[in-house]
Amino acid sequence: MKANRMEAFSDGVLAIIITIMVLEFKVPEDHSWQALLPLGPKIISYIFSFIYVGIYWNNHHHLLHMVRHMNGQLMWLNLILLFWLSLIPFTTAWMGESNFAPAPTALYGIILLLAATSYWLLQLAIVKQHPDDSSFYKTMNNDWKAKLSPFLYLIAILTAYASPWVSGFFFVLVAAIWVMPEKRIEEILKGQ
Amino acid sequence: MKANRMEAFSDGVLAIIITIMVLEFKVPEDHSWQALLPLGPKIISYIFSFIYVGIYWNNHHHLLHMVRHMNGQLMWLNLILLFWLSLIPFTTAWMGESNFAPAPTALYGIILLLAATSYWLLQLAIVKQHPDDSSFYKTMNNDWKAKLSPFLYLIAILTAYASPWVSGFFFVLVAAIWVMPEKRIEEILKGQ
Amino acid sequence: MKANRMEAFSDGVLAIIITIMVLEFKVPEDHSWQALLPLGPKIISYIFSFIYVGIYWNNHHHLLHMVRHMNGQLMWLNLILLFWLSLIPFTTAWMGESNFAPAPTALYGIILLLAATSYWLLQLAIVKQHPDDSSFYKTMNNDWKAKLSPFLYLIAILTAYASPWVSGFFFVLVAAIWVMPEKRIEEILKGQ
Amino acid sequence: MKANRMEAFSDGVLAIIITIMVLEFKVPEDHSWQALLPLGPKIISYIFSFIYVGIYWNNHHHLLHMVRHMNGQLMWLNLILLFWLSLIPFTTAWMGESNFAPAPTALYGIILLLAATSYWLLQLAIVKQHPDDSSFYKTMNNDWKAKLSPFLYLIAILTAYASPWVSGFFFVLVAAIWVMPEKRIEEILKGQ
Repeated sequence: MKANRMEAFSDGVLAIIITIMVLEFKVPEDHSWQALLPLGPKIISYIFSFIYVGIYWNNHHHLLHMVRHMNGQLMWLNLILLFWLSLIPFTTAWMGESNFAPAPTALYGIILLLAATSYWLLQLAIVKQHPDDSSFYKTMNNDWKAKLSPFLYLIAILTAYASPWVSGFFFVLVAAIWVMPEKRIEEILKGQ
Repeated sequence: MKANRMEAFSDGVLAIIITIMVLEFKVPEDHSWQALLPLGPKIISYIFSFIYVGIYWNNHHHLLHMVRHMNGQLMWLNLILLFWLSLIPFTTAWMGESNFAPAPTALYGIILLLAATSYWLLQLAIVKQHPDDSSFYKTMNNDWKAKLSPFLYLIAILTAYASPWVSGFFFVLVAAIWVMPEKRIEEILKGQ
Repeated sequence: MKANRMEAFSDGVLAIIITIMVLEFKVPEDHSWQALLPLGPKIISYIFSFIYVGIYWNNHHHLLHMVRHMNGQLMWLNLILLFWLSLIPFTTAWMGESNFAPAPTALYGIILLLAATSYWLLQLAIVKQHPDDSSFYKTMNNDWKAKLSPFLYLIAILTAYASPWVSGFFFVLVAAIWVMPEKRIEEILKGQ
Repeated sequence: MKANRMEAFSDGVLAIIITIMVLEFKVPEDHSWQALLPLGPKIISYIFSFIYVGIYWNNHHHLLHMVRHMNGQLMWLNLILLFWLSLIPFTTAWMGESNFAPAPTALYGIILLLAATSYWLLQLAIVKQHPDDSSFYKTMNNDWKAKLSPFLYLIAILTAYASPWVSGFFFVLVAAIWVMPEKRIEEILKGQ
């Protein structure tokens, strides 16, 4: 019952994060198709963030179903996750505006890395509420996605100084491995 | 149970989309009635989008009632729909600001066309969860609205170069055929 | 069950309307208390609108409890109400920015009058779902608040040209008679 | 049942408050790490407000579970609380923009003090719904946190003129004593 409200609050924040990013698309003064060209990097940047926030919403959704009892620790871990996610509109806008310059692109990766770390801590706290021999505990302890992502983010952050294309490739890679919903949790939920 | 959260998240995004469009009405510096005149095209543009988002909310509402089991595919199809809808505030503002110039009006139609296509794909995925001989399957397979709308949007997009009035007429036409709620689904729900 | 979603959507829109009004308070460049003085009329304007939206939320809350079966008509009447309410942030900002000049103050009243009329139509449609001899029907048909408010708004609109103080007095008057929650519906709900 | 809607509405407003604060981080024109330096005080200011709003959400969550019957008084006390909280994005931005100058920092404290007072009044009204000999009544009547906070805010407001560091210390102190969730209510809920 209590996890529901945390879910609703998180959904609210995620819905607003996704939608206010659009406020960064300033209406061009000119009324031609060419006037849209400078918006290109911003839109690519927005698509990235839309997918990432979508992934977080999706996995968060599955994860919170596994909460057995709410407490202050979970609430604060969740708020810390929302804090990092709330900075995504800013980093998205800066990265887009700068046409994927090194510093903004690296910052984008850093915020995503911090969000991923917070998510991992939240997951850890929820997993601990389950017995060691539960299938949920076992699969989550072997969570290769959560273990691999930070490294990929780190590479994306560092390669931002070499080329935005390389960096972007690693951002796409992380997104790709997460886009699939948590089949494992889905199966566990079905098995119950 | 899970579809509820997708519904709530979508409602949140739609509510924000509808409301942030108003942020585009810059407060006039002058304090006379005449100062409102330049806002005219923006308000017409806003009314259009308000109705379209209202239609999406309304039909989405009916459609999601027919989901039999949630999965990752539905989630992503729904997010893709929300992505196109999230661009409506931008295209609304540009169309209004430009006083219905060809390119912004055509772009407005293109985004609506993409949203309609995404909605249609989402509907298709939900319909597939029902047996071939169910009344829901049968009516939805004969969905003349969904089949007609893309053509009307296409005409609206192309005629934007001829006259905003003709283009606007087709936008009104699509809205008109969708404004009526999904009587068919309502009847199916009642029959259950 | 369906009215719940209309309620949730309306709450979302009302919550956003209330909160984005604050975005109009531009941060003063100076860092002294005097720098806040020009914000005075804007804050008064915001307080008015906060109370009005609060009243709508409150009464809407009571009203929707009386919905017996959802349909497209109720959805659209509700959307029309939300449309007028969505213009409140704009009229609030203009009225505040203009320091209660006649035209912005009159427009503020016009939008409130249109919102009140929409609310009254929504109420009418819901009342019609009840039998003629129900206590809800009887009390709602004698709704002196709903009958008086339009006249008070009209006076506020017209007196905006004489003095913002007189106009403001009538805005306060309408708010005062509505601030009390729907005791009548509360009693009917208890009696059920 | 009715408290649920108040909860949902409050969550909506809090979610929007938290997220629109980020809109104050204007994207730097430069694309270097140095360009982020001027954002420093704004981010610190944002972190403070994020924690405060998080605390309010958390405690509000616990408090509303104790509502026994909704009425107009609770609704308006809650709206008054939301009113003060809705001003937090403005005071946060001003305090950050001014690099913690005395007046903006004092105003920040004043708004927090008014929010805390409103929260206390709401709590009082809810406590009164419980019998004098209930454990909830007894613990809440001895609420040292609620009694101490106003004094700490007052000190923070006054010391804003001496040094932002001293003032900040007291803001941190209030946050620290509230960050812990309402263990007392949690225990009472469990005991039921």
